[in-house]
Amino acid sequence: MSCKYLYYFTEGNKAFKGDMITMKNILGGKGAGLAEMTAAGMPVPQGFTITTGACTQYYTDGRQINDEIQKDIFEHMKGLEKITGKTFGDNRNPLLVSVRSGARQSMPGMMDTILNLGLNDEAVEGLAKKTNNPRFAYDSYRRFVQMFADVVMGVSKSLFEDEIDKMKAEKGYKSDIDLTAEDLKKLVAVFKKIYEDNEHKPFPQDPKVQLIEAVKAVFRSWDNPRANVYRKMNEIPYEWGTAVNVQQMAFGNSGNNSGTGVAFTRNPATGEKKLFGEYLINAQGEDVVAGVRTPSPISHLKDQMPAVYDQFTDIATKLENHFKDMQDMEFTIEDGHLYMLQTRNGKRTATAALKIACDLVDEGMIDKEEAVLRVEPHQLDALLHPQFDPDALKKAEVIGRGLAASPGAACGKVVFSAEDAKAWKKNGEKVVLVRLETSPEDIEGMQSAEGILTVRGGMTSHAAVVARGMGTCCVSGCGEITVDYDKKQFTLGGKAYKEGDYISIDGSTGNIYGEALPTVPASITGNFGRFMEWADKVRTLKVYTNADRPKDAQQASDFGAEGIGLCRTEHMFFEGNRIKAMREMIVAENVEDRKKALAKILPYQQGDFEGLFEIMGERPVTIRFLDPPLHEFLPTKENDIKDLADDLHITVEKLKDVIASLHEFNPMMGHRGCRLTVTYPEIAEMQTTAVINAAINVTKKTGKKIVPQIMIPLVGEAKELKFVKDTVVKTADKIIKDSGMDLKYEVGTMIEIPRAALTAGKIAKEADFFCYGTNDLTQMTFGFSRDDAGKFLDSYYENKIYESDPFVHLDTEGVGRLVKMSSEEGKAANPQLHLGICGEHGGDPSSIEFCHNSGLDYVSCSPFRVPIARLAAAQAAIKENRAKAKA
Amino acid sequence: MSCKYLYYFTEGNKAFKGDMITMKNILGGKGAGLAEMTAAGMPVPQGFTITTGACTQYYTDGRQINDEIQKDIFEHMKGLEKITGKTFGDNRNPLLVSVRSGARQSMPGMMDTILNLGLNDEAVEGLAKKTNNPRFAYDSYRRFVQMFADVVMGVSKSLFEDEIDKMKAEKGYKSDIDLTAEDLKKLVAVFKKIYEDNEHKPFPQDPKVQLIEAVKAVFRSWDNPRANVYRKMNEIPYEWGTAVNVQQMAFGNSGNNSGTGVAFTRNPATGEKKLFGEYLINAQGEDVVAGVRTPSPISHLKDQMPAVYDQFTDIATKLENHFKDMQDMEFTIEDGHLYMLQTRNGKRTATAALKIACDLVDEGMIDKEEAVLRVEPHQLDALLHPQFDPDALKKAEVIGRGLAASPGAACGKVVFSAEDAKAWKKNGEKVVLVRLETSPEDIEGMQSAEGILTVRGGMTSHAAVVARGMGTCCVSGCGEITVDYDKKQFTLGGKAYKEGDYISIDGSTGNIYGEALPTVPASITGNFGRFMEWADKVRTLKVYTNADRPKDAQQASDFGAEGIGLCRTEHMFFEGNRIKAMREMIVAENVEDRKKALAKILPYQQGDFEGLFEIMGERPVTIRFLDPPLHEFLPTKENDIKDLADDLHITVEKLKDVIASLHEFNPMMGHRGCRLTVTYPEIAEMQTTAVINAAINVTKKTGKKIVPQIMIPLVGEAKELKFVKDTVVKTADKIIKDSGMDLKYEVGTMIEIPRAALTAGKIAKEADFFCYGTNDLTQMTFGFSRDDAGKFLDSYYENKIYESDPFVHLDTEGVGRLVKMSSEEGKAANPQLHLGICGEHGGDPSSIEFCHNSGLDYVSCSPFRVPIARLAAAQAAIKENRAKAKA
Repeated sequence: MSCKYLYYFTEGNKAFKGDMITMKNILGGKGAGLAEMTAAGMPVPQGFTITTGACTQYYTDGRQINDEIQKDIFEHMKGLEKITGKTFGDNRNPLLVSVRSGARQSMPGMMDTILNLGLNDEAVEGLAKKTNNPRFAYDSYRRFVQMFADVVMGVSKSLFEDEIDKMKAEKGYKSDIDLTAEDLKKLVAVFKKIYEDNEHKPFPQDPKVQLIEAVKAVFRSWDNPRANVYRKMNEIPYEWGTAVNVQQMAFGNSGNNSGTGVAFTRNPATGEKKLFGEYLINAQGEDVVAGVRTPSPISHLKDQMPAVYDQFTDIATKLENHFKDMQDMEFTIEDGHLYMLQTRNGKRTATAALKIACDLVDEGMIDKEEAVLRVEPHQLDALLHPQFDPDALKKAEVIGRGLAASPGAACGKVVFSAEDAKAWKKNGEKVVLVRLETSPEDIEGMQSAEGILTVRGGMTSHAAVVARGMGTCCVSGCGEITVDYDKKQFTLGGKAYKEGDYISIDGSTGNIYGEALPTVPASITGNFGRFMEWADKVRTLKVYTNADRPKDAQQASDFGAEGIGLCRTEHMFFEGNRIKAMREMIVAENVEDRKKALAKILPYQQGDFEGLFEIMGERPVTIRFLDPPLHEFLPTKENDIKDLADDLHITVEKLKDVIASLHEFNPMMGHRGCRLTVTYPEIAEMQTTAVINAAINVTKKTGKKIVPQIMIPLVGEAKELKFVKDTVVKTADKIIKDSGMDLKYEVGTMIEIPRAALTAGKIAKEADFFCYGTNDLTQMTFGFSRDDAGKFLDSYYENKIYESDPFVHLDTEGVGRLVKMSSEEGKAANPQLHLGICGEHGGDPSSIEFCHNSGLDYVSCSPFRVPIARLAAAQAAIKENRAKAKA
Repeated sequence: MSCKYLYYFTEGNKAFKGDMITMKNILGGKGAGLAEMTAAGMPVPQGFTITTGACTQYYTDGRQINDEIQKDIFEHMKGLEKITGKTFGDNRNPLLVSVRSGARQSMPGMMDTILNLGLNDEAVEGLAKKTNNPRFAYDSYRRFVQMFADVVMGVSKSLFEDEIDKMKAEKGYKSDIDLTAEDLKKLVAVFKKIYEDNEHKPFPQDPKVQLIEAVKAVFRSWDNPRANVYRKMNEIPYEWGTAVNVQQMAFGNSGNNSGTGVAFTRNPATGEKKLFGEYLINAQGEDVVAGVRTPSPISHLKDQMPAVYDQFTDIATKLENHFKDMQDMEFTIEDGHLYMLQTRNGKRTATAALKIACDLVDEGMIDKEEAVLRVEPHQLDALLHPQFDPDALKKAEVIGRGLAASPGAACGKVVFSAEDAKAWKKNGEKVVLVRLETSPEDIEGMQSAEGILTVRGGMTSHAAVVARGMGTCCVSGCGEITVDYDKKQFTLGGKAYKEGDYISIDGSTGNIYGEALPTVPASITGNFGRFMEWADKVRTLKVYTNADRPKDAQQASDFGAEGIGLCRTEHMFFEGNRIKAMREMIVAENVEDRKKALAKILPYQQGDFEGLFEIMGERPVTIRFLDPPLHEFLPTKENDIKDLADDLHITVEKLKDVIASLHEFNPMMGHRGCRLTVTYPEIAEMQTTAVINAAINVTKKTGKKIVPQIMIPLVGEAKELKFVKDTVVKTADKIIKDSGMDLKYEVGTMIEIPRAALTAGKIAKEADFFCYGTNDLTQMTFGFSRDDAGKFLDSYYENKIYESDPFVHLDTEGVGRLVKMSSEEGKAANPQLHLGICGEHGGDPSSIEFCHNSGLDYVSCSPFRVPIARLAAAQAAIKENRAKAKA
C-alpha cells in the first residue's frame, strides 16, 4: 500500500474496506469523503487523490515530484479522460480539473487550491464552443491565469485585480458581472502579459506542465507560514503531509442555473438539527469567500431550485447517517445538476458539540462512549468562563494582540501595580492589571484584578500559570506594548492608555480592546452535565486540582475535582503579615530566631490548611512543602530594601549582605525545594505542625476523617527523602500522639528531577506516592529554563526541530520515558505507591492520554481545567478499551 | 557469616581461607592483620575482633549494642580469660585489654582507642602486687581513667592534664616520669573525682560496663567530625563502619626493659629498602604521639635490645613476604618480650610508591600488573607539579586555607585584576592573582599568573576548572578573605595584604602563606616512565586531553595524551581583537552584519586550530563549537559598557538594550550550545570553515592526514543535531570540494542533557561519536547548578545524604545510568559510534573505572590529569580481567 501513490475516487471505499482512519491517513479527509460519496452513488465529479505519502516523498526528494509519481499522475489523467469522455487540453471538449489540498485533518483556508486547470489558448475556444458561452469560457480562463500566477508562481494577486478595476473604470462597470466575453478575453491577454513580465517566460500552455506545477504548489503550501502556524496551534504533525485531489471541474459560474454553496447538516453554532448554510448563483467557490456578493441562506434554494434542494437534503441526511456525525459539505450546481465537492465532519462550537453529541445518542445514531469521543476536551473551556457580548465584539476594534494565556473576558480600568489593583478593588473598581511581567509578590493584586495583561512571558510565564490557576483572564507577552510605570501609562499602536482608562482583554483569543466591552456569563446547558456523567463513567484516571486557596478549591470541587493534587504553600507566605515573618526567618542568624519567626507563620498556614480540608473533606489534599529559593521572598528595589531593613531593625548593609548571600546563578537549580529542609529542618517542622494540627481540628469539627498528603519537592535521592520524611514523621507522630487521635497521613514526593526518576526504585521505598512535577522535569530533561527558552524556541519551531511546546504537551519520548521508567520501577519496589502528575501537563488532553496509558492513578490541574481533564481521561480510557478489543 | 559478629584472632585465617579482601571487609584492616600474624605464629597479644557488621548493626539499632552482641562479647571475654589465664576485673591477676578501632581502610588517628581497660580500685592493687610495680599499676590506672573519661564520656583532657601539671609544680618535678606511685595513686583519686563531678556518677568499677561503653565509643567515633572529613577526602563509604579489636594489653610502660614503637619495612618517603621507624623505652603508644619525649630511630634498638631487634627484623621480613607489600607495624616490648600489635600496608609518598612497585617486581615478589595496582593514581599528581621547599614550609605560617583546587606551589606578588596580572608579568614580575571569583574574561590574566586565589567558588568553579586545565596552581573558595578592589588589598586573619606584597599558595593542600616561599621542581625518577609503560600495556581505554591552546596540547602530549577530546572554542573568543569582533557580532542586527563580524574572527580561529593540528598530527582533535550564552562575552560594568559602546559606534542605551535582551534567569539552561547555531547558523558556518581550512592547510604542510572531529554541544533531540550537522556538512563539503583534497572529518555530539541520553538511539544515527559532558549532565540530572550547590551540599554531606561531590566522582546510580543506557542504545543504533567522556570526571580514577566498565572508548581530561587517567584506566582493565578470570 505504501508504494501506491494515487487512487481514483472509485477505488477508495474498496481499497480501505471502511477503515475510515487509515483511509483518511492516506487519502486525506477530503479524498476519503469523495471516495465514500462516490461509493454511495452520490453525484461527485470524478477524479483521483494523490496520497499524503506522495507529499512526504516530495519533501524527501528535495521538493521534487519524482518521475514515478509524475508518470502515475498522467496515467490517472488518461483514466479520468476515459471516465469523463473529455480530453485534457483538447480544443473541442477539454477536461478541466480542480487541484485541491486535503490533509488528514481539515485545515480550512490554510493551503492552496487551483481551479479551472487545463485551460489554454486553444482549450478556451473549445470550451466556449462546447458550452456556447464564450463569456463563461474566458471568465474561467482569466480566473485560472490569475490563480495559477498567484498560487503557483507567487505573482501578486493585486496586479490582476488592478487590471480588472482599471477596465471596469474605463468601461464604467459597477460589477465583475458586467464584464463581457470580449472584455474578459482582453483581460486574459493582459493577465498572460503580467505573468510573462513577472516570470520571464510565457504562461504555460501545456496542461501537463500546469498540472504538475499545481500539484507541487499544493504540496508546497503544506509548509507555508500560515499552515505551519495553524498546525502548531492544532497539534497537527508536520510529517503527515497533505493529499491532493484532482477532480473534474463542475462549473457554478456557467449561468443563472448554476451556483455553488456550503452547508452543514446541523447548526454549527447551536447544534440545532436543521440544515444550515448558504449559496451563490452563477459563481465559483472563491466568490463566496471573497464576499463581493452576499450569499443566500440555503433555505432559499428550496424555492429557487426545489429539485436540487430536495436532492441535496436527501444527500445531506444520507451523509450524516453514513458518517454518524454532523457534516460540512461543499456543492456546486452546474446547469441545474447538483455536484458534491466535499463532505467532512463539521467544526462546531462547544455548545453545539455537546448538543450534537447528546442528540446523536438520543437519535440512536451513536452510543455514549462514541459521544464522549466527539467533543474536543479543549472546547469545554469556552463554557466555563464569561465571554464578551458577541454583538459588542463585532463593533469593537482590536488594538493589539498577545498570547491567549488564560481564557475568559475581562473589562476594567488600567492599573499598573499589584498594590493599586488591591486598593482600587477595595474602592469597588474593576481593574485590569498591566505589568511588564508578574512575580509572586503580585499575587494579591492579581487576585483583585478582573484580568491581567503582561508585556513579557509566554504561555507558562508566572502570570499565565497563576492566572489559569485562579481562573482569571490573562493575555500575556504582548511585546508591542511599552509600559511607563512612572507616568502610569502604556502605549500600544501609537496610542497612550493611562491609569484609570478602560480596556478589555480576551484571554481566549489574546485580543486587546481599548474600550469597555460588556460581558455575558457563559451558558452551561443541561447537555453539559449529562455529557460529563457519561465521561466520568468510563474514566479510570482520577482528576485532582492544583489549588492553594479555599476559593480555588471550591471552584475545582464545583467542577468535579476529586482531590487536591498540589497545594503550593509558598503562595501562603506572601500575604500581609506572613511575608514579614518569612523575611524575619530568612535574615535570622540561628535556629532559635528562625523558629521564632516560623512560629508567627504557623497559625496562618494552619488556618489555610483548615480551609482546604473543610472544603475537600475526605478527598485527598496534597500539600507541597516550601519550594522556591528564599531570595524570592526578599525585595529587590532599593526603597523596599530600606523599608524592610527598618522593619526588621537591621541595617541596610546587613540586609544587603543577606540578599547577596542568597544570590544564585541559576535559581531554578539552586537552594530550593527539599534542599531548604535539609539545611533548615525547622521549616518542615513548622509546616508539618500546621498540616497535622489543621487535620486534627477539621476532623474534630466535621467528623470527617482527614488524611493529609504531605509532598516533598525536588527530591533527587532516596536518602534525601528519608531525611526530610524523618523530620516530618517525628514532628507529626508526636502531635498525633499528644492529641490522642488516630490520624493517618501520607508522605510522598514530587518526581521532578531526572535523578529522582532514574533512582525511583529506591525512592519508592520511602514514599507513599509519587507526583510528577512535569514542569521542572521538562526543564531539567531538556536542559532549558522555560523563562529563557522563549528566545530560541521559535527558531526550533520554524526549523521543525520541535513542533510543540514541551511545557504544554508532555514530551513522551524524553520526559515521558522517565515517567514510564520510574512509575514501573516505583510500583515494582512499592506496590502500594500511588502515582500522579501535577505539572501544567495535568490539564492537557494529549498529556492526560499519556498519563492514562502510563498507568498513573491521577492527574492534577488548575480548577478551570478539571472538566477538560475529566473528558480527556474518559477519551483515553475509551481509546485504550477499543485498542484492546481490537487486539 | 553475616550473623557472626565476633572472631578470635585465632579464627580469622581459617574462616576466610586467605581471602584477604573479605577478611578486611569484615574484620577491618587491623583485625585481619592480627589474625594473619597469629596464624603465622608471631607473638601477638591475643584477643578478638568485633566485626564491621556489628558497627552497622549498632547504627541500625539507634546507636545501641543489642543484647545478642553484648552477650557474644562477654562470652568472648570468657574465652580470652581462658587463653590468657587472667581474669577480667580480678584483684590478683586481672585481664587488661585495649579496645581499638580498625576500619577496612586505615584511617590513622581518626577514631578512638582505649588502653588499660579492666582496671578498677581492686584490679589495680592486683596488678601492683602481681607485677610488684605499684607505680606502673597506678600509672596505668590514671591513664585509663583519663582516656575513658575523654574518649567515652567526652570529659575534656585538659582537666586531667592540669592536675598533673599542678602536682608536678607542687612537687617541683620536671617530667611525668618523676611522679611516684604514691603521686599517681593520688592522681587517680583526683581523676575519679573529676569524672564524677562531670558525669554525676562514679567512675565505673564494673569492667563489663567499661568494656561495653568503650566499644560503643569506638563505634561512635566512626561518625565523629574528623572521621567524616577524612572519609570524604579518601572516598571511604559511611556504610562500611569500623571493626573493634579487643586485645590483651602488652605493657610498654612496665619499666626500662619495656617500650613501644612503630616501623616500616621500607622507607615510606623514598621507597628505599631498609627498615625505617622509631621507638620509646618505658612508654605506651600514646606517649609516642604526644611527643613529650623524643623517640629513637629503630636502628638503635639493635644495640639496646639485640635479640628483640633480630626477632623484629625477622618478623618484618616475613610480614612483607606474606603480604607482598611494604608493611607499617606497631609493636610493644614488655619486659624484653616482643609483641606485635599491628601490621598493615604502609602509606607512602608517590616517589616511594613507584620505587617500591618497581623494586617488588624486580625482587620477583609481584608481577607487573600487580605493581600497576599498587600506586594510587591520584598520587602521581604530586610528581607533576613544583612543590614548596619542605624545609621552608616547616617554618612558614599558614595564614589561611581554601580548597586545594589545582595542585602545585605558587609564589608571587599579589595583583587584583587580570589586566594587572598581564601587565606585571610583562614587566618580569611573578604574580598571584587574587579575585572574588574569575570569569572567562580573566583567562589571559590567569595564564600570566603563577597561581590563582579566589574567595568564592568550589572545586569545579571557573577558576578551579580553568587552572587545572592550565596546570596552574589554584586555591579557591577561601571565604575568610575580604577583598577591597578599590584599595587593591585583601584582608585575611586580621592582616591586610596590599598589591605587590608577596604571598605563596599551595594548590595541593589549600594553604595560604603571607610570605615568599621557595619552590623546588618535582623530581620524576626513572621508575615513573617504566611504571607507566606497564600501565599502558594493559590499558584498553584511550586517554585524550581537554586542551584549547597549543601550549596545553603540547603539555598533554608530553604526558602521553592520545588525542584532544575537548577543545573549547569559546576561550578563543576572549583574547585581544577577537572579543571585539565577537561583540560586534552580538550587537549585529542582521545576518550580514553578523557574518561580517564573524569573518574577522575566522583567521584567528583557523590559526588556533592549525596550531593544535600541528602538535597532534594524526591523533584525533575534537573541536566543540561555541557553547556559552552570548551575554558572557559582554561587559557588565558601567565603564566597560561605555567604552564598548564607543568602540562599536553605538549608543550606550542601544548596548544596554542588547545586554538586557540577553539577560537570562537561568543561563545554564538558556540560549547556548547548539541553540546558538539553530538561531544563528552563520556561527557554525564560520567555525566549520576555520576547522576545515586549518585541517587542509596542516595536511598540506605536514603531509599528515588530519581528521578533525567537530563536536556539537548541548544537543537534546536528533532533529536538532541533524539541523546543525546539515549546516556543518554543507559548509565543510563545499570547502573540501573546492580544495580538491580528500579530507575526512567527523561530526559528533556532546551528551550532556538528560533528553539526549534518553533519546540516544535516534541521536546516534546522526552522530559519528558521543562525548559525555558529565559536568552539565550531572547538573541537569541532579537539578542543581554547581555554582549554587556549594550553599547546601555541606548539609548533604553532614547528613550523609551524599558522601562525595558528584562533580568530582561520577554518580553511577543516576548520571551513570544515563551514560550506560545511552551508550548501549547508541551503539545498537550505530555500531560505528565511538564513545568518550570529557567532563571533569574524565580525570577522576573512580569515574574512569566506571567509563571502562561501561564500554566507553576514551576519557578526556586536563593535561595534568593524563598520567593519572592512564594509570586509572590500566587499573580498571586489570580489575576487570581479574573479575573475569574469577568468574
